[in-house]
Amino acid sequence: MNFASDNWAGATPEVMAALVKANDGAAPAYGSDALTRRVTGLFSEVFEKEVEVWFTATGTGSNSLGLAALSRPGGLVLCSSEAHIHSDEWGATEFQSGGMKLVTMPQVAGRVSAEALRQTLSRFPEGNRFGVPVALSLTNATECGTVYAPAAVAELAGLARAQGLAVHMDGARFGNAVAATGAKPAELTWKSGVDFLSFGGTKNGCWAAEAIVVFSPDKLSDLAARRQRAGHTFSKSRFVAAQFEAYLTGGNWLRWAGQANARAEQLRVGLRASSQARLGWGSEANEVFAVLPRETIARIRLAGGTLYEWPAEGMGLTADEDLVRLVTSWATSPDEVARFLAMVG
Amino acid sequence: MNFASDNWAGATPEVMAALVKANDGAAPAYGSDALTRRVTGLFSEVFEKEVEVWFTATGTGSNSLGLAALSRPGGLVLCSSEAHIHSDEWGATEFQSGGMKLVTMPQVAGRVSAEALRQTLSRFPEGNRFGVPVALSLTNATECGTVYAPAAVAELAGLARAQGLAVHMDGARFGNAVAATGAKPAELTWKSGVDFLSFGGTKNGCWAAEAIVVFSPDKLSDLAARRQRAGHTFSKSRFVAAQFEAYLTGGNWLRWAGQANARAEQLRVGLRASSQARLGWGSEANEVFAVLPRETIARIRLAGGTLYEWPAEGMGLTADEDLVRLVTSWATSPDEVARFLAMVG
Amino acid sequence: MNFASDNWAGATPEVMAALVKANDGAAPAYGSDALTRRVTGLFSEVFEKEVEVWFTATGTGSNSLGLAALSRPGGLVLCSSEAHIHSDEWGATEFQSGGMKLVTMPQVAGRVSAEALRQTLSRFPEGNRFGVPVALSLTNATECGTVYAPAAVAELAGLARAQGLAVHMDGARFGNAVAATGAKPAELTWKSGVDFLSFGGTKNGCWAAEAIVVFSPDKLSDLAARRQRAGHTFSKSRFVAAQFEAYLTGGNWLRWAGQANARAEQLRVGLRASSQARLGWGSEANEVFAVLPRETIARIRLAGGTLYEWPAEGMGLTADEDLVRLVTSWATSPDEVARFLAMVG
Amino acid sequence: MNFASDNWAGATPEVMAALVKANDGAAPAYGSDALTRRVTGLFSEVFEKEVEVWFTATGTGSNSLGLAALSRPGGLVLCSSEAHIHSDEWGATEFQSGGMKLVTMPQVAGRVSAEALRQTLSRFPEGNRFGVPVALSLTNATECGTVYAPAAVAELAGLARAQGLAVHMDGARFGNAVAATGAKPAELTWKSGVDFLSFGGTKNGCWAAEAIVVFSPDKLSDLAARRQRAGHTFSKSRFVAAQFEAYLTGGNWLRWAGQANARAEQLRVGLRASSQARLGWGSEANEVFAVLPRETIARIRLAGGTLYEWPAEGMGLTADEDLVRLVTSWATSPDEVARFLAMVG
Repeated sequence: MNFASDNWAGATPEVMAALVKANDGAAPAYGSDALTRRVTGLFSEVFEKEVEVWFTATGTGSNSLGLAALSRPGGLVLCSSEAHIHSDEWGATEFQSGGMKLVTMPQVAGRVSAEALRQTLSRFPEGNRFGVPVALSLTNATECGTVYAPAAVAELAGLARAQGLAVHMDGARFGNAVAATGAKPAELTWKSGVDFLSFGGTKNGCWAAEAIVVFSPDKLSDLAARRQRAGHTFSKSRFVAAQFEAYLTGGNWLRWAGQANARAEQLRVGLRASSQARLGWGSEANEVFAVLPRETIARIRLAGGTLYEWPAEGMGLTADEDLVRLVTSWATSPDEVARFLAMVG
Repeated sequence: MNFASDNWAGATPEVMAALVKANDGAAPAYGSDALTRRVTGLFSEVFEKEVEVWFTATGTGSNSLGLAALSRPGGLVLCSSEAHIHSDEWGATEFQSGGMKLVTMPQVAGRVSAEALRQTLSRFPEGNRFGVPVALSLTNATECGTVYAPAAVAELAGLARAQGLAVHMDGARFGNAVAATGAKPAELTWKSGVDFLSFGGTKNGCWAAEAIVVFSPDKLSDLAARRQRAGHTFSKSRFVAAQFEAYLTGGNWLRWAGQANARAEQLRVGLRASSQARLGWGSEANEVFAVLPRETIARIRLAGGTLYEWPAEGMGLTADEDLVRLVTSWATSPDEVARFLAMVG
Repeated sequence: MNFASDNWAGATPEVMAALVKANDGAAPAYGSDALTRRVTGLFSEVFEKEVEVWFTATGTGSNSLGLAALSRPGGLVLCSSEAHIHSDEWGATEFQSGGMKLVTMPQVAGRVSAEALRQTLSRFPEGNRFGVPVALSLTNATECGTVYAPAAVAELAGLARAQGLAVHMDGARFGNAVAATGAKPAELTWKSGVDFLSFGGTKNGCWAAEAIVVFSPDKLSDLAARRQRAGHTFSKSRFVAAQFEAYLTGGNWLRWAGQANARAEQLRVGLRASSQARLGWGSEANEVFAVLPRETIARIRLAGGTLYEWPAEGMGLTADEDLVRLVTSWATSPDEVARFLAMVG
Repeated sequence: MNFASDNWAGATPEVMAALVKANDGAAPAYGSDALTRRVTGLFSEVFEKEVEVWFTATGTGSNSLGLAALSRPGGLVLCSSEAHIHSDEWGATEFQSGGMKLVTMPQVAGRVSAEALRQTLSRFPEGNRFGVPVALSLTNATECGTVYAPAAVAELAGLARAQGLAVHMDGARFGNAVAATGAKPAELTWKSGVDFLSFGGTKNGCWAAEAIVVFSPDKLSDLAARRQRAGHTFSKSRFVAAQFEAYLTGGNWLRWAGQANARAEQLRVGLRASSQARLGWGSEANEVFAVLPRETIARIRLAGGTLYEWPAEGMGLTADEDLVRLVTSWATSPDEVARFLAMVG
């Protein structure tokens, strides 16, 4: 009953097999090997467009290096108040960019509305002394388990681009968003105005497979140099490439993400039917937020279950309740969910 | 006949097996898993001292984050003119530290002498306006295939510490240095005055296994925060830990490094006996520098061999010759070397 | 009728005279001259404690260099949502510190309450992944014309220090705060827990006289190096020292600040009595916020008056009204205020 | 007998008078005042071209902000081994630029030769892993008192521009260079390929008057934001503008620089005729380097004279001699020089 995080799971058998297969003979270093080139081609197929692909070590690396490559001192990055880049990366974007600021926008269940974006943009007119907005960063799937459909992305990106902002998507759980919306990767990104994407494989069945996928290379500068000096250029690039090859081949990534989403839906259905618990809010991807009796949480932990409490300000919980986050992954089994729901009652 | 670099090789079978074994079930993320803790213990055994171990994505990450953690604006890092941190990392240390400067010292075959260090230190007296020396960085094995024995490290580190500098060792090929000198890891490092070590496993049989090993934690500040915001904190930490477990267990790392060194020695012996080629300079670890006829280099490449030309300023080469670097690894076979030597003649 | 800003005024006759006097003969550069030393002594007298004094070019320089000297990667600076360091310095603190984040707290008329600080501190427990609070920054007088009395400073600083934070005071208008509260400089600062102060003379009768006054030197590191590489170390230091000598001698600075405050009070009294206008909120120092008919604002400008509109969200203004900020300075005359009030009606 | 530095002198009477005159009434802040605009026009006249002018607090500020505005991570700035930006600014350029590296070139009496530049450029071919050269920085007058004539600037700048580098001139003593060469300001700068100039008035009769003069605005990005967040945007801009108005009006600056140069020439003539001392090398601007008996140096100091010893490596001095730097300024009198020469004998 591991619902702590999708990064507690290991790698899928397919990813392990690809790693074993890639471990044959010598190959040029720093990304000039044939496998890395082939995988770049795979990305272009998946996104129906010739893209630039920059492997990095972590999602934090992708987010911060990509945003830094916009290269605007005094620049502002607009993001939701729940954004991972704001709350969980220890100022990585501020650091890599030499001091850009993040400006947070109100969100509902992780999603920013067009109205919130419009209001925020209006706070920084030409000549203001706070800074100049240079990027909108959307997380999809969001940190609250919800997703933006292509139309929502397009509306937000359209507003941002109209004022000259670049559009970034934090796709640490991009597979879950694609699986949940049923949209094509291209529709969720560049066709809706996204300029670059932090594409995460780690949470969805890889060991460490992260990349910046660039749709609008003219907007980012010096990514090669930035990545190198940040220490994110792997010498044995093929060990990332191998993971991504297994990931992208034959739609594996969407199958794994779909499984994780299905386990989350199983959780949501069970919690909606529960007499002891309730959903904190609706979600569509592989994160579920539920209000449980504290006593139940304790019992689940005693039984070896893992899960995290979540801030519940303003949600009107009783003193006996707590909000928890439940994350499913490719490795979550239906039985694991069933046992959990049985304990919730 | 791959002599391009030791990072062209894949992972050893033992490392692959450990990865497969670690891929079982769920484990806490960000280094709080049991395997990562166990491996930290292994490091402490290997170094005969309780050490801090910080996994990073690359050697550049280790070098630059460790040096940045000395946290001295306007600080100077003293290193050899051939140092990787100076010549191959695109200003990583300058960037991570917010602008520390590297001051290069003359070297012979990659090694800095005590006299060179003394002279350099004397250039920055109290109150100078250039900057204040805060670290000595030694690479062992050096970028030129030579090694520092414990006595040499101790002499240099002693001079540096006497003036308040911290001592860093870039150990991208630390295994090769230990194997070549026959010294104990402790003797080559903290017992000789080294405060922190960039410990590299990648070039010696791992996929991506790098760590900052800290002997003097009081001298470095905020490594956890620095690593996190630099995007070097892997979520699935056990995939690095597994590699290091295979690496450090049963002396595997020294066996692999020893094999690489032996193949380099086989090259050196053959080149010394050659009528067509000669050594550029003597070396002890797994890098060999040789002067070859350009025509021979071309033939080797035609036959599928890989190797890199190297700057040969001041070495008095004829127009028909070139200096090349030959790197061996755990994967280099005696037969590969023999075929190479046969082509050299 | 200049109410645009106190930095639109020139220098006082006393400051000009001191500059002329200091312009005699040669003097050592970079702060080693006798006048700079003497002025450092004056600061120590004024603050009843031996202090470190670091001249800088601007208040932004003082704020950002001082906060950066706390030297904590991933560090958080807590400040009011109206703080100048957050809203008007283009990310100076983020930049100088290599990426520290500012966390804003709700305020009322520019002042943060103990309750708001308590709640904010509770959001960042040990082990959180957002960052670690390292400083509380208070502006006194605030950006909204109000002041913190010593007891308020002591309460806030006490909470901050209890959790290990350093306490910074942005004193761009420190003279106005001292004059308005009647407190001693020592009481408003170190005796109430302030560790370092951005001491501004520019807005109160100098040309460019700013300094970081350090009460707790152990908490800041490498200010000399930070200032030098930031380009804030004036070679002809005496030109700043001369201004400060005139400023601090014989209580000039408090006399000038008192005059500015008195003109603001004259404005407040007049506006309270007005049938056409009203105060936005009460204030004590040299900034007054007033709601005026737009038509009146236009007439004042036609008559050569200067003043700025201010964001008035949530204040319930009618479409015909606007909120304006009125700033007085040492150079504002009673007659200027009277003419303004007459136009307001 | 002050020969310590030209920044030990105060301001000229003309500069003081201009300050007094500018101190009349209110003026808009942050550079939007009429005087600042007028002075920008003066700069355009002096340089025979419409230029951008950005006041900064110090020469270090100008150099580092200008170079940082080239905005290239991993970028290399090529400069002489004696360059002030390398040796005297505590890593300001490395800091402001987020880690660009300075690459030093050999020089003779402060001047870099075309051959040295050519060789240095050849060390960084496309695809090298050290970094990419982005700027050539020349100091004129040099740190050794010599000057580049327009033809020398044009040759060096031509080589640099041919490889895509921008060309910066550190003109802390630009007036002295113009006066010594007799060239027009335009000829020494943009007509010879200089893209931006750190224009210094401080050492030549101002209090603190420094500016970045930009001839090729397309090559620099975001200078306004960079200057603001670096704390170099003075609120009372007119106090700098006033200095520059006095400076540039009626050729004052060239008259003052010419006087300083003439006093240096008086020193050189006297030293060439001396039986006890000799010139270290020939120079043309207001710095003179001389070899004096240590005993003479001591006597001069006893008599109240000021001067600094200078590194003399490789100059073959005897144990009784030392190399000293003698700097003259607008304030140096012929009599002061005569007394000095008399003591030298």
